Amino acid sequence: MSDVEQLRKQVDEQALTVRQLKSSKADKEQVTEQVALLLALKEKLRIAGGDNSNSSSGTPAAATPKASGGNSEAGKSAGFTLKTAKGTKDYTAKEMAVRKEIFATLTEVFENHGAVTIDTPVFELKEILMGKYGEDSKLIYDLKDQGGEECSLRYDLTVPFARHVAMNGITNIKRYQIAKVYRRDQPAMTKGRMREFYQCDYDIAGAYDAMIPDAECVRVTVEVLTRVDVGPFVVKINHRKILDAIFDVAGVPEEKVRMISSAVDKLDKLPWADVRREMVEDKGLDGAVADRIGEYVQLRGGAELLDKLEAMPELMASEKAREGVQDMRLFFRYAAIFNVVDYVSLDMSLARGLDYYTGIIYEAVLVEENVRPTQAQPTATGAKEVKEGGDIDESQVRVGSIAAGGRYDKLVGMFSASRRTKGKGKAADVPCVGISFGIERIFSVVYSRMQSAEVKANRTKVYVISLRDGLLEERLRIATELWDCGIATEFAYKVKPRFQNQLNTCDSEVIPWAVLIGSEEVEQGLVKLKSMAKDVSAEEKSGVAVKREDMVAELKKRLGIMQ
Amino acid sequence: MSDVEQLRKQVDEQALTVRQLKSSKADKEQVTEQVALLLALKEKLRIAGGDNSNSSSGTPAAATPKASGGNSEAGKSAGFTLKTAKGTKDYTAKEMAVRKEIFATLTEVFENHGAVTIDTPVFELKEILMGKYGEDSKLIYDLKDQGGEECSLRYDLTVPFARHVAMNGITNIKRYQIAKVYRRDQPAMTKGRMREFYQCDYDIAGAYDAMIPDAECVRVTVEVLTRVDVGPFVVKINHRKILDAIFDVAGVPEEKVRMISSAVDKLDKLPWADVRREMVEDKGLDGAVADRIGEYVQLRGGAELLDKLEAMPELMASEKAREGVQDMRLFFRYAAIFNVVDYVSLDMSLARGLDYYTGIIYEAVLVEENVRPTQAQPTATGAKEVKEGGDIDESQVRVGSIAAGGRYDKLVGMFSASRRTKGKGKAADVPCVGISFGIERIFSVVYSRMQSAEVKANRTKVYVISLRDGLLEERLRIATELWDCGIATEFAYKVKPRFQNQLNTCDSEVIPWAVLIGSEEVEQGLVKLKSMAKDVSAEEKSGVAVKREDMVAELKKRLGIMQ
Repeated sequence: MSDVEQLRKQVDEQALTVRQLKSSKADKEQVTEQVALLLALKEKLRIAGGDNSNSSSGTPAAATPKASGGNSEAGKSAGFTLKTAKGTKDYTAKEMAVRKEIFATLTEVFENHGAVTIDTPVFELKEILMGKYGEDSKLIYDLKDQGGEECSLRYDLTVPFARHVAMNGITNIKRYQIAKVYRRDQPAMTKGRMREFYQCDYDIAGAYDAMIPDAECVRVTVEVLTRVDVGPFVVKINHRKILDAIFDVAGVPEEKVRMISSAVDKLDKLPWADVRREMVEDKGLDGAVADRIGEYVQLRGGAELLDKLEAMPELMASEKAREGVQDMRLFFRYAAIFNVVDYVSLDMSLARGLDYYTGIIYEAVLVEENVRPTQAQPTATGAKEVKEGGDIDESQVRVGSIAAGGRYDKLVGMFSASRRTKGKGKAADVPCVGISFGIERIFSVVYSRMQSAEVKANRTKVYVISLRDGLLEERLRIATELWDCGIATEFAYKVKPRFQNQLNTCDSEVIPWAVLIGSEEVEQGLVKLKSMAKDVSAEEKSGVAVKREDMVAELKKRLGIMQ
Repeated sequence: MSDVEQLRKQVDEQALTVRQLKSSKADKEQVTEQVALLLALKEKLRIAGGDNSNSSSGTPAAATPKASGGNSEAGKSAGFTLKTAKGTKDYTAKEMAVRKEIFATLTEVFENHGAVTIDTPVFELKEILMGKYGEDSKLIYDLKDQGGEECSLRYDLTVPFARHVAMNGITNIKRYQIAKVYRRDQPAMTKGRMREFYQCDYDIAGAYDAMIPDAECVRVTVEVLTRVDVGPFVVKINHRKILDAIFDVAGVPEEKVRMISSAVDKLDKLPWADVRREMVEDKGLDGAVADRIGEYVQLRGGAELLDKLEAMPELMASEKAREGVQDMRLFFRYAAIFNVVDYVSLDMSLARGLDYYTGIIYEAVLVEENVRPTQAQPTATGAKEVKEGGDIDESQVRVGSIAAGGRYDKLVGMFSASRRTKGKGKAADVPCVGISFGIERIFSVVYSRMQSAEVKANRTKVYVISLRDGLLEERLRIATELWDCGIATEFAYKVKPRFQNQLNTCDSEVIPWAVLIGSEEVEQGLVKLKSMAKDVSAEEKSGVAVKREDMVAELKKRLGIMQ
């Protein structure tokens, strides 16, 4: 997210704060203070040249999760010391309401596939995390050594899961976990990258027949991304064995495979010419070797690409390549039965950073034109995201990736090995395959599409209002009766609240029904049920009188609650 | 929890692991290894003298949350390096299934009262936490200073909430939060106290009329504890102003108020004589002053106790006392309307440790006889928990406390004060009242009551089974159809799974229905629906044949899903 877009997000958030303060009849001084902050932010935005741009209108480009860096930095720029730690933020009630919905949708999909959930600690022994993340290990957040063990905040959910499986001698489990992970991402903070964020993982552990769980992971991915309605997407797949064979056949020296692999992985955001230059000039690869790699890694397609690969005798001379292609044949067969083959693109340029993958690898990306300029059309519809000089703003492009994973058959064994000291024989490998959802990105896309006003943070169904005379105790009695019946109810915490203030709360909290009482109603044993919706009859708008003893039944009927 | 009980818990858990491994047909070596560990633990338990005790049978005494220290220590004692960090543990799928239910119940109650949820980071700037917890500040967990800000893991959810309210200029919010907190509790580790555990807070912030939200907090507490069915409980209440007046009237010197207050707070587990001795001998209080305190703090009762207090001219000479009693009169009036007055006990010995309380304070405790010997009956039914010499095992007694809280009107102001630098006038106090549930204790009580076998960790409704011939692709097709209809479905990830293995999985995973297919059924366009329950007709037990195209409708009917 660019500075301008970050500012714009801050302006939007601040405007919301001011509106909320005003509607809650906040202290005037406070409102003035917050309005001043809003004006200051607007001025900064104007100077940054973003005051009349339209990209805050909910396009995916404005929807990067890096927006979340917001409130920490906002506090700082206004000179407060009162702030959250760098790279962390609070989520407001409205944000949480939307996040909870998304979490619930994911949970439902996972549970429909038989997954259970486990919980692991936020910090692990440092040695558990070491040697798992390659270069990214430098991003691991350590706890202070206050005497005792050396511990670190978890970097992802995969390594703790593998540790759990090994530690408990589990041979098979299908689990999901939605939890926070931590990365001390220093340089990227200017782009608002978070140090604390949620991950959401689905993994299948166990020794099973080839590619069945692997295909189910893609089915789960498609179900999740369709259900949360994140927009058009494609699931890119590749196979580590095919990729290894390509590097082998092309003649990449063993010690360079890793760096060349990570160069290849950039093909989703750089044209081949740039990636080739990096390989040859920066990584010292022979130009002819790079060209041979280029022939392979620019290939993409469906199952028919497997025919093409099989028609390459040079590649097929490699046993690894043959195994990989055979796996992918099975994958396409199962994916077709699972009705997800149309979402899949076999993409030879997909490499994935992490070392521990051993088989199929996945990456789901959004495909809306303005999100992700592809190498075929780097400056066409994606022109806005391409900075002058052809340098693409990475933070813009990256929003495309919303889920990723793959097969990692050796990770659990790395932990089980430490149990061999008991002299009971070989380490137990437990093959695993899984997918991790970029829940923060999904949230940003979904949330930016919504109008803040339409998000209802609470679940309150009824607000008990006194017309006059306060009638506190009668309001408490009514609330008690409704709570007893499981109807979410609120009322003003005042002995004599003003009628209009109560109506305003009802409006600002988006509470659909009000129960109105005055002394007359109480004497006559009546209450009035007033709908707060706009498109209702005049009678329901002004309040339908019902007998006090029928109140619950009448409300349940109107709320659609089964009697 | 004593060492013996911890060992017993470990034995139970290990026995479960072995059973699970056996039922999942795990690798023989693994089973042997785990059985050896089980035998070793049983031997340790025998030596510790706990092999024939019956307190693992689910009595509340065995249900302390400190049980959770288990798996870290278990790993250690068996010589593994593969473990979770000290004071942390993993939660298994079955444990999580029960925890999720409890969280859902609490969430429903909170939302019925109109609360929203927010999310704050796991770590805060260290300065935010400093000066809030008195002596307990030494338990704060710091992050390593890797260049940048000094940060600490949150100690509770209250201080981050107050920081959030102040930082965002919020004037009123009713919020709940269920999240992990961290305490580096070194000495207590021998009792298995956790360093990472969940808290669950419900707070009402805003300037309202006296005691209305305060009474609603007790209503929420009663709803929660009744709904989770934790057993008989009482909500002890007191008022800081009354307590302050008592110390004042009794003649406690200003500088000793805090330590005397914390001595008084021990009256729930020590007889008055012991508390008096601590005051006089350890804290250097004048004996006559202690005796005057004793007259007050041993008082407890209902609303009638207020009459008694009002009849004490010495006490009523204090304005604070009069204010406190007036508050409590209102409280009892509202609590009566909320139907919770029978759960409430006004208890002059309730003091609560934290400094920041300014008004009413609460503590909900379990009242089962064997959980909490009161001072009236220190060695009667509670005899088992009382060690020789009358020294009560604190870890046993403590299980009684399952929720606590109170009013804290100045905490938000402590943070808002830091915004005064902007020169916009006075710091904004936002009065707050809230209650924190000991969710780990509630979980322990509920979980220990359950038989492990009756906990279903997954939500799978249907298992697709091939009678013979494998029929993998047909099983995938059926699963796809059921997933499409939102029916939670699994199948064996094998090309040719054995029939009996599939049935065993169905049993061990407690999956209620199986869809059976063989080549014959496929040819005839049929499937068989087999109930896995015990009390069904012979026909449903062996499998009812239905047409393939009716499968979904027939299953939905049997699963009680609306068409």
